[in-house]
Amino acid sequence: MEKGARGGRTGAVMATIRGRIAAGALVAGDRLPSIRGLAAGMGVSPSTVAEAYERLAAEGLVRARPGSGVFVARTAAPLPLAPPGGRMERAIDPFWVSRQSLDADPAALKPGCGWLPADWLPTEAIRRALRGAARAPEAVLTDYGTAQGSLPLRRLLARQFAAEGLDVGPDAVLLTASGTQGLDLVCRLLLRPGDTVLVDDPCYFNFRALLAAHRVAVAGVPMTPAGPDPVRFADLADRHRPRLYVTNAAIHNPTGASLSPAVAHRILAAAAAHDMTIVEDEIFADFEPEPSPRLATLDGLERVLRIGSFSKTLSASVRCGYVAARSDWIEGLIDLQIATNFAAAGPLAAAIVHETLSGGGYRRHMEALRRRLARARRDVGGRLEEIGFRPWTVPRGGFNLWCELPDGRDAASLARFAAEAGVILAPGDVFSPSGGAGAFMRFNAAQMSDERVWATLARGLARPDDEDQTAARRS
Amino acid sequence: MEKGARGGRTGAVMATIRGRIAAGALVAGDRLPSIRGLAAGMGVSPSTVAEAYERLAAEGLVRARPGSGVFVARTAAPLPLAPPGGRMERAIDPFWVSRQSLDADPAALKPGCGWLPADWLPTEAIRRALRGAARAPEAVLTDYGTAQGSLPLRRLLARQFAAEGLDVGPDAVLLTASGTQGLDLVCRLLLRPGDTVLVDDPCYFNFRALLAAHRVAVAGVPMTPAGPDPVRFADLADRHRPRLYVTNAAIHNPTGASLSPAVAHRILAAAAAHDMTIVEDEIFADFEPEPSPRLATLDGLERVLRIGSFSKTLSASVRCGYVAARSDWIEGLIDLQIATNFAAAGPLAAAIVHETLSGGGYRRHMEALRRRLARARRDVGGRLEEIGFRPWTVPRGGFNLWCELPDGRDAASLARFAAEAGVILAPGDVFSPSGGAGAFMRFNAAQMSDERVWATLARGLARPDDEDQTAARRS
Repeated sequence: MEKGARGGRTGAVMATIRGRIAAGALVAGDRLPSIRGLAAGMGVSPSTVAEAYERLAAEGLVRARPGSGVFVARTAAPLPLAPPGGRMERAIDPFWVSRQSLDADPAALKPGCGWLPADWLPTEAIRRALRGAARAPEAVLTDYGTAQGSLPLRRLLARQFAAEGLDVGPDAVLLTASGTQGLDLVCRLLLRPGDTVLVDDPCYFNFRALLAAHRVAVAGVPMTPAGPDPVRFADLADRHRPRLYVTNAAIHNPTGASLSPAVAHRILAAAAAHDMTIVEDEIFADFEPEPSPRLATLDGLERVLRIGSFSKTLSASVRCGYVAARSDWIEGLIDLQIATNFAAAGPLAAAIVHETLSGGGYRRHMEALRRRLARARRDVGGRLEEIGFRPWTVPRGGFNLWCELPDGRDAASLARFAAEAGVILAPGDVFSPSGGAGAFMRFNAAQMSDERVWATLARGLARPDDEDQTAARRS
Repeated sequence: MEKGARGGRTGAVMATIRGRIAAGALVAGDRLPSIRGLAAGMGVSPSTVAEAYERLAAEGLVRARPGSGVFVARTAAPLPLAPPGGRMERAIDPFWVSRQSLDADPAALKPGCGWLPADWLPTEAIRRALRGAARAPEAVLTDYGTAQGSLPLRRLLARQFAAEGLDVGPDAVLLTASGTQGLDLVCRLLLRPGDTVLVDDPCYFNFRALLAAHRVAVAGVPMTPAGPDPVRFADLADRHRPRLYVTNAAIHNPTGASLSPAVAHRILAAAAAHDMTIVEDEIFADFEPEPSPRLATLDGLERVLRIGSFSKTLSASVRCGYVAARSDWIEGLIDLQIATNFAAAGPLAAAIVHETLSGGGYRRHMEALRRRLARARRDVGGRLEEIGFRPWTVPRGGFNLWCELPDGRDAASLARFAAEAGVILAPGDVFSPSGGAGAFMRFNAAQMSDERVWATLARGLARPDDEDQTAARRS
């Protein structure tokens, strides 16, 4: 991204307003969102929104009426909009992939999305669990459940953790509405606005979105195929005195890296030296053929919290995640969960997850899924290499492939082009706190079977990069 | 509450640590929670925790080892604890009722809890909906769904709102994991630490817990049986320039008040004059025989947001709530929900709610439930009056009865006594931002059928008040 941050943000606000007018959500005479409200919603400063409104006024699209607000000009006609809709007008920010993936037209292709197609998941086991839930005791159907969440599911998780070498009881586990919500609670417990948090560079884009919502500063630790660079980690810890480090150890998102024992040890030692807390997001753990080194396991939950969910391996519709942590932190997290969501994952969701996980069918499903994913990674990876993408590492499991584009091509430009063709990609910079991953792309090996994906990639690579197609089309 | 705020907080921290030792969660030689962690968890300052630890050390219960922390003394033996467990050691704060109600022993009686017994809810309809869900398309079983949540359920809600005179489309509705989570997202969108928020005095205790998590100041508007006092509302708005006012209009929690048209108009006018935003929590709306005046309906969602859920009328286990708001706010709320929970209410939860609400059975269930609740309010209210409680108003619906204790008796003292007998009450001050409701109690008319509740109330009223029984018992 070569544009200055300020110009980029102002442009993003302008694009948002243009998109709403284009989509008919704002029509001639409508008042624009309040400057403060839109600024808060987009995570930009009010002055950025004010500047964007001024520029739109200068273009004649809106009119300011002193004392009463800014309105869509009577003469403004909806602008032409390419499929799949107004979302693509948005700047390529940490929300770009999630909003596009979640709200994609059912016909859209999603090689950039972060989950498996429905027919890769154990739908029959879920149907069976739902039929079982229909016969559950009344309390499971209607009650909030306990503040910490279903004890049978917490026991099952504790047994799984113990099998991986993390020996804690069910009291160390709090069920949440999702892994993301678990991380959010941890941030609420441990962070204050203005704190600094370390993440990997690149990292899961939604870590960036979540941390921005907590108004903390973020510094990125460069990734290597063996995990975060421990020298840079210690250096950043020295320099920024961060409160927290948020990472995936097992099958890192987006790179597919796994932590080596030596790196794990050095990261933990540096965290101890700087009295940092670590959050390890284990959402991809079940995709590993066998467990790789984990910070939580080495540390025994002293300064590491483990979060996870079942959204990638079982169902994202059954909302259920967890946090595993020290008992004093669990107490604080329970209070925060009551304050902000009242209950843990609902008893019904917990019962469905428990029933699905505890049957032998889940283990067989995961074994078959790992084999299927290994084939998909090999086939898709090979084909990406044929058209010039270079894999950054060979992941041990999962569906993500992190690749460098051929010939220094720009991932954001390719993603914008593909979005107009109904193909949703995940360009590198949405993952990069430093903005240094513009030549990378994350592909989902399980979402690449449609030939139109490959045709779109070929067409996209055959055309020149265009730094801002939207602006060009409008000028 | 006659104790100073500081002494009360320090005492609460001491009680928490004592409770953990008593419950065996901390044993001799264990390190106490970090000062910072516990302070964050309990929403107090680190210096409060430090002071509490010093006092516990002075008592010999813990020992400080310079440089390595504070540890449970080797000589500390678990203290005797009465049922229902360690939770009751906690100070009577906004979490007191929720933690006790959620984690109560199954044998505990809960006249203070804020929900209906399972057998008052439409469990057969939920079982039917679960069997239907077992046959749903794969995407409903496994996908995240769209960022805004199930369109069929949003359409159904929009039709219900229209029937109440609030004419908005499904695009104005965002599904959330719960009503509380909807309010949390609104606070994230609109509030900054240090802002002031108006609530009712008394108000739903969890509003206080949630706003504390957002680090905002809270001012309480005195309630009248016709709604918040509009003169005091305008005065507080003048004085504090609050950003937000959070209320229940229909069947106010805890008082059971309903808004009069005149009060509604004056509150909205004052909010407009001070450019305040209002959040109206409509979780009890379906309990009304017919709709009372609503701020959102009068205002048309210009400066009012409506939140709600199905936890009181259908199921708290099926986690699903909503926010209805202006489209520009909805956009910001969607981003915040992705950042902090990734998805809306899951497609499965939305499908179960939609199926249950859209059948004629739900309407019949609610009609029967309203009749049953009217009888329960009349019978329980009469019996409370017989033993000296004075009803503050006659609610139009719902299960809450807000009553003044006889003879100036102290509600917190009675609640502590009852908790030791396994009866969970809701003493007035957990609802009161000013701490001025110590002579009031909220009763749940649907949770009072067990004679042991009445026996415990009689015994509690027959004994003298005791400002701090826990301290007395231990000294």
